[in-house]
Amino acid sequence: MRGTPPTKIDYLSPKAKKGLVVVITGNGKGKTTAALGIALRSAGYGLSVCIIQFMKGDIHSGEWDSLKFLPNVELHTTGKGFCGIQGNPYPWKEHRANAQDAIDLVHEKLNIFDVVILDEINNALKLKLVDLEQVVDIINSKPANTHLILTGRDAHSEIIELADTVSEVIEVKHAGRKDIEPQPGIDY
Amino acid sequence: MRGTPPTKIDYLSPKAKKGLVVVITGNGKGKTTAALGIALRSAGYGLSVCIIQFMKGDIHSGEWDSLKFLPNVELHTTGKGFCGIQGNPYPWKEHRANAQDAIDLVHEKLNIFDVVILDEINNALKLKLVDLEQVVDIINSKPANTHLILTGRDAHSEIIELADTVSEVIEVKHAGRKDIEPQPGIDY
Repeated sequence: MRGTPPTKIDYLSPKAKKGLVVVITGNGKGKTTAALGIALRSAGYGLSVCIIQFMKGDIHSGEWDSLKFLPNVELHTTGKGFCGIQGNPYPWKEHRANAQDAIDLVHEKLNIFDVVILDEINNALKLKLVDLEQVVDIINSKPANTHLILTGRDAHSEIIELADTVSEVIEVKHAGRKDIEPQPGIDY
Repeated sequence: MRGTPPTKIDYLSPKAKKGLVVVITGNGKGKTTAALGIALRSAGYGLSVCIIQFMKGDIHSGEWDSLKFLPNVELHTTGKGFCGIQGNPYPWKEHRANAQDAIDLVHEKLNIFDVVILDEINNALKLKLVDLEQVVDIINSKPANTHLILTGRDAHSEIIELADTVSEVIEVKHAGRKDIEPQPGIDY
């Protein structure tokens, strides 16, 4: 990478370490994208990152091709695409079984990684592919220094209550509404 | 990188290419982070990315250390830190001069890169370090296929009007309000 580094760098003093629970929700574009940004920045600090994507099995996106550049990052794409979206051919039961496997995977990774990102888990909870108790249990059983990021629209009020930081991404405008096709890099 | 790839991948059909103007604004956490995510995903598609950061000169953050892993990404950190924030010792005039240099840099890069990210430019405009006409001129003079991403709170209504996609990140909750110190990777 090239560029212009800052002319003078002050390093922030080391902080009291605390694993945060971060929820990124809302109907706008940028939730998974922000989670990817957290993965990128965390990798820069030498933190290990595990991303587990719920309900994203079957459509190619740029994540796989770009995360491979980063050290200490694992990406698990589980599921068979978005449940309940027109054209998705799989029955709810199969989506549920996939999401339940993903929950087992979360518990396996939670004690190993510095940052664990559960992409679209809010959505999976809303669609009852996972249970509220299961998500609460993940939050309560994570190691004290592990950061846990939960993305997806319609975050459950109890999850928001348990979180340290919650951002809601609101769609003000979307190119798709003007019949502009989704663009690689920006939209997927 | 390790992980579980999707069991089956459908590639989306090639789309009509159009360079988008994307605004990421609001008072919540995740704007720069989402821009970093766009950089990461774009790099995965082989797109070249130039990030120009306004008003971020002097505090170390994880961006520099992580973007170096990605091919075809340039990061320019300009300015002398956040203007108007307590403790920042530089006069407004110096911030303005730095931001004006950054505008020249934008025009230089706009014709070279597939994706150009202007981080915190909305903020710079709000603080009158750059002029509305200058930002409008950047939007109007960009090549048709170049994606332009503008981040920062308080995006100007005219910029929102010109954009294709606008997301507003709302702070629902922030760990800092509970006196939890900012965490590397997550907060900076």
